[in-house]
Amino acid sequence: MTLEAFFTPRSVAVIGASTKPQKLGHAVLANLVNGGFLNETRRVYPINPKAETILGLQAYPSVLDVPDAIDLAVIVIPYPHVPDALRTCGEKGIPAAIVISAGFREAGREGLEREMELVSIAHQYGLRLIGPNCLGVIDTVTPLNASFSAGMPPGGPMAFMSQSGALGTAILDWAQAGRLGLSKFVSLGNKADVSEVDLLQVWAEDPDVRVILIYTEGLPDGQAFIRTARRVSEKKPIVAVKSGVTKAGSRAVSSHTGSLAGSEQAYHAAFLQARVLRAQSMQDLFDQALAFGYLPPLRGDRVAIVTNAGGPGILATDALERAGLSLARFQPECIRELEQFLPDAASAANPVDVLGDARADRYRFALERVVADPGVDAVLVILTPQAMTEIVETAQAVAEVAARVPIPVLTCFMGEARVGAGIEVLERYNVPNFPHPERAAGALQAMSRYRRYRAEPEPEYESFQVDQAAVRAVFDRTLAEGRVTIGDAEARAILQAYGLEIPPSELASNPEEAVEIANGMGYPVVLKVASPDILHKTDVGGVKVGLQNAGDVRDAFDLITYRAQRYLPEARLWGCLVQKMVPPGLEVLIGMNRDPQFGPLVTFALGGIYVEILKDAAFRIAPFSRREAQAMLGEIRAKALLEGVRGQPPVDQQALVEALLRIGQLVLDFPEIIELDINPYVVYEQGQGGIAIDMRLVLKPASRSLDAHSLPPAEGSVP
Amino acid sequence: MTLEAFFTPRSVAVIGASTKPQKLGHAVLANLVNGGFLNETRRVYPINPKAETILGLQAYPSVLDVPDAIDLAVIVIPYPHVPDALRTCGEKGIPAAIVISAGFREAGREGLEREMELVSIAHQYGLRLIGPNCLGVIDTVTPLNASFSAGMPPGGPMAFMSQSGALGTAILDWAQAGRLGLSKFVSLGNKADVSEVDLLQVWAEDPDVRVILIYTEGLPDGQAFIRTARRVSEKKPIVAVKSGVTKAGSRAVSSHTGSLAGSEQAYHAAFLQARVLRAQSMQDLFDQALAFGYLPPLRGDRVAIVTNAGGPGILATDALERAGLSLARFQPECIRELEQFLPDAASAANPVDVLGDARADRYRFALERVVADPGVDAVLVILTPQAMTEIVETAQAVAEVAARVPIPVLTCFMGEARVGAGIEVLERYNVPNFPHPERAAGALQAMSRYRRYRAEPEPEYESFQVDQAAVRAVFDRTLAEGRVTIGDAEARAILQAYGLEIPPSELASNPEEAVEIANGMGYPVVLKVASPDILHKTDVGGVKVGLQNAGDVRDAFDLITYRAQRYLPEARLWGCLVQKMVPPGLEVLIGMNRDPQFGPLVTFALGGIYVEILKDAAFRIAPFSRREAQAMLGEIRAKALLEGVRGQPPVDQQALVEALLRIGQLVLDFPEIIELDINPYVVYEQGQGGIAIDMRLVLKPASRSLDAHSLPPAEGSVP
Repeated sequence: MTLEAFFTPRSVAVIGASTKPQKLGHAVLANLVNGGFLNETRRVYPINPKAETILGLQAYPSVLDVPDAIDLAVIVIPYPHVPDALRTCGEKGIPAAIVISAGFREAGREGLEREMELVSIAHQYGLRLIGPNCLGVIDTVTPLNASFSAGMPPGGPMAFMSQSGALGTAILDWAQAGRLGLSKFVSLGNKADVSEVDLLQVWAEDPDVRVILIYTEGLPDGQAFIRTARRVSEKKPIVAVKSGVTKAGSRAVSSHTGSLAGSEQAYHAAFLQARVLRAQSMQDLFDQALAFGYLPPLRGDRVAIVTNAGGPGILATDALERAGLSLARFQPECIRELEQFLPDAASAANPVDVLGDARADRYRFALERVVADPGVDAVLVILTPQAMTEIVETAQAVAEVAARVPIPVLTCFMGEARVGAGIEVLERYNVPNFPHPERAAGALQAMSRYRRYRAEPEPEYESFQVDQAAVRAVFDRTLAEGRVTIGDAEARAILQAYGLEIPPSELASNPEEAVEIANGMGYPVVLKVASPDILHKTDVGGVKVGLQNAGDVRDAFDLITYRAQRYLPEARLWGCLVQKMVPPGLEVLIGMNRDPQFGPLVTFALGGIYVEILKDAAFRIAPFSRREAQAMLGEIRAKALLEGVRGQPPVDQQALVEALLRIGQLVLDFPEIIELDINPYVVYEQGQGGIAIDMRLVLKPASRSLDAHSLPPAEGSVP
Repeated sequence: MTLEAFFTPRSVAVIGASTKPQKLGHAVLANLVNGGFLNETRRVYPINPKAETILGLQAYPSVLDVPDAIDLAVIVIPYPHVPDALRTCGEKGIPAAIVISAGFREAGREGLEREMELVSIAHQYGLRLIGPNCLGVIDTVTPLNASFSAGMPPGGPMAFMSQSGALGTAILDWAQAGRLGLSKFVSLGNKADVSEVDLLQVWAEDPDVRVILIYTEGLPDGQAFIRTARRVSEKKPIVAVKSGVTKAGSRAVSSHTGSLAGSEQAYHAAFLQARVLRAQSMQDLFDQALAFGYLPPLRGDRVAIVTNAGGPGILATDALERAGLSLARFQPECIRELEQFLPDAASAANPVDVLGDARADRYRFALERVVADPGVDAVLVILTPQAMTEIVETAQAVAEVAARVPIPVLTCFMGEARVGAGIEVLERYNVPNFPHPERAAGALQAMSRYRRYRAEPEPEYESFQVDQAAVRAVFDRTLAEGRVTIGDAEARAILQAYGLEIPPSELASNPEEAVEIANGMGYPVVLKVASPDILHKTDVGGVKVGLQNAGDVRDAFDLITYRAQRYLPEARLWGCLVQKMVPPGLEVLIGMNRDPQFGPLVTFALGGIYVEILKDAAFRIAPFSRREAQAMLGEIRAKALLEGVRGQPPVDQQALVEALLRIGQLVLDFPEIIELDINPYVVYEQGQGGIAIDMRLVLKPASRSLDAHSLPPAEGSVP
């Protein structure tokens, strides 16, 4: 069912419409009446059993008493009565309801139960629900103000959805002061039914929306969000602030991956994959909103600066460089013409310094000449209020030029007392103005990122021929034995089933068997303790490398089993894994950690010190494409090691990409895997592939529910 | 000579005072007259040979015609006449002059010569000079407006010095809109005489200045700036924006240190050592200025949040955490009392959520209770404009409480249209308000940093017993031979002279000599090519390690000399250095690069991959204290390697500190060293010291001047 009844209803009932001006139920009704919604064909019905009329409108005791069809109900009554009211809406056949009332999930267990009741009523009647515990919905195009906001914001190209109603009030207050123009505003509240994902789908198709803004504290259906946002971002930019970036910490983790991959990393990866532009603050969100809302798309990263002051020009240059943009290099004709027109002391190179005594005509000339240079993708006009500066006239000139060119022109008029009049002109003509060059650079950086997002091909998810049954067999056996951890000895079968190279190895239950196996595979070999209860083998002295002969193997076997028993007397010991020692290569880590909101968060990191000390890692949420896996390799700080340094050949990046993709498939095929570490995966030079040396894996206990929030602490961790 | 005549003159002459309102010379005079300067005892003298009176004041043809003494001259005449005018000022005995006229250093070589002429006139007459090419000087306390600004800014606790006059106009425009209150404003212009250093000294003693703000594009006398700023920062905070953070790039560099240590690193180190708070943008500067200007000092990092909305509370929590501050934990009584007074649904823990329906009284109660908790060092009050919110009354309540408590109370009133009235109240009472929690957190972060700066002891510079003569002898010989580079073989004497441990080694001119030396010192040994023309020995295969016997040494000697000749036929070959092979340890790099503005910039980095790929390095400008050297070790990202990881013992940090201090002394003692690399320096576990394995050093050519700007590209670099 579409959500159009929330934005373009023909009739709205306010359940709890009040005669008392201080009540929210009155404010909602007043907003509907004063917000311009009513016309010849549109109706508003106050629902109040005790009133005859409210604000001149006939009141009804119940929606069932309203003679006509109702498209939208707004519910503003004490929480105990909300379920009944919603049920009545269902009976009336109302397709959409906004529940403003609080007292639900946010108020504890009873509230949560009440909220679940709302959801089940909505499902029963096929009714869509926004809220509860929200501020309401505004559509400035309809126009519809079905909220208790203080008045109607000015119209504009931005659509805003906020999980926080309070933040919504601040946003509307900024909008009313002229800082941004809104086409839609939705306070999502508890998101019992309608969520970010639903609104993205609707707003993607809405011609009145040029940019979608989101404030969220969490995205429960993370995978749907990624899929939807990526599709929508093809059409229009999505900018989001995610708050509550808490430390990982709360859940005990036993893997490297777990210690690296917290909720912050998951959101970072998710927004990248969803092509959502992440704002660092509400200020940053507004800055980006202005740019996307009012400017034509950026076609390249070459920015021209026109300024009447050197200092701010330098600040802007610094900021653009930091933001990854470049200063445009003008064509010779452009420089020549600028030189002819501008005074001698002016700079005709970029930044163009029109000098402190520039009046509006000089700004206009420089701007017109610069926008005509094909090497210029955007122009930042900077103004400081010097003695001769014509502030308002310059604003006018900039606005006129900006309106007729196909590239973004933005401004940085610095100051307030005198400069304010110029800023008002710019705002009137929808020229985005920023008080400081750094913020203009930030907005351009977002536009540039969106340009690159748009240029990315649609991700294609590959599917490898694998042997799911073999993996299932290992898991079944493990869980049947009451275990949830799988170490090296058992993991081999899993890796093999998913097509990853592993070193030849075999389980030996006594020293003589180990020698026999080693003789068969050839020296040197490695011995590793094989026990379902020991995951961190090196910590208990459970690994011996570089064994050269039968004597070494015998000694190592005895030493390893002796130590393992001493450290963990209760551990089940299967013996030792004898493994052919692989040639040295670059050690990397490939891991996965199941995020409560987004699911399988796959990690790539360099091994050893890099991951342990520098936390140098890259993340993606499965599924991801080959291109995205390749991008992960480029996101680590020490990526030069993959490309070859100091005469070393580059490593086999394709082997790494392939391994990442296959692990991505494994963790999607088996949602019961909650943690996984391949550490190390040794990669060789280009064309030589790589080998998964060691793996550990943690399963969700068979008895537990699938709710990721109740994941058990990973077991089997050895202190 | 003090600079008081610039701020509190009794008489001011305006040379170039004009009758025409559109002229700067008129604007300056008008500002003096309208800015409130004139009273019974103060005089302003327009100097204009063609006018009788201007703005009602009697004009004089020359300062020499003025019957009384003149304390300050403001010169606003075309540049060709400025030198003569300044000379006349000198003859008149005027102690201070502001040269507003442009057309000097900024206008090319002739202009530079004209500026040098001004400086020499000033020296001749003992006259101090601000400018040329500036906006002028404002003192709102005197009050004195000796500038062509558009009016007088409101008074306040901030003093601002700006290298850019244009930026100054923007700052004054923001001030006039009520955003900040200025005690002093100085446009420094070309800084021919009076510089940042001078103003720091004056403002340190000025009771009307609580915070010093700087916009600078460069600090030519960097060492004086560090010394002065550090002293001044004991008394009051200094906040600076440095623009023009350009890429290193321009100068060819042949060392690792050179590729790491650009101007950006030098400024970073200098501001740390000078205890100057660096603002990332002008916006950041203003935010910090508000906090320092109007708030009591921060005594700890524990912040309480009082908010009427959950979302912004989370944003604030995130921002405080990112800024390195912590959320205060309230005492039980505090929580109990909050719980008693606040509604059930409110949160009495930090952040205190007073709920969306909070009126001013609830805010007041919560704030009063929270400031009384001894575990709270600062309070951030957040307000969103919800239906019941009493915006102005809440602002009033916050201002009243803030005024009488000894800890910083700052606000984040979010919104503008309705919230604006509340913000005005806050501004009236000097409660710093920030539109977004992130900016409030940024201001608190700066206060916290200043608190830590203040807690640092005064740095003590140690002086080691060294053998300067030995070093001088090496340099003299090198320069006498027409060389500027010094490699390993010669560097040994230098390191030894400055007390750094070096491995036993000796120069061998033929294979047999090498064997004899090796036999004497014991195996294993290392052979290194010894040539003044080969600095990057490994690049030409000039190093062989792990030589176990006489045969190895003979082979290595021949191989190294053959290869060196093949790669660089013109290189002078002295033979090979035979070096006792040292036990393995952690390899670090200690280097120095002479910065044009600040002088010796000393680098510390981990060796190998860390410095090459991760650019993981820390910097200080010599001289630095033992404490500062120790701090360098803690600034590298991979610092855990120094502390010992995975069972490794910690390294001998004291040995590293000592080596850094000794190198600091070396490069101060010998300004002719322009680059230096000790790479690797091998450090052992605690108590075991470290050894400088290899060093290279570049001297300034003897014939060149000392001007660091004209440093030659480092020579001897092997591609």
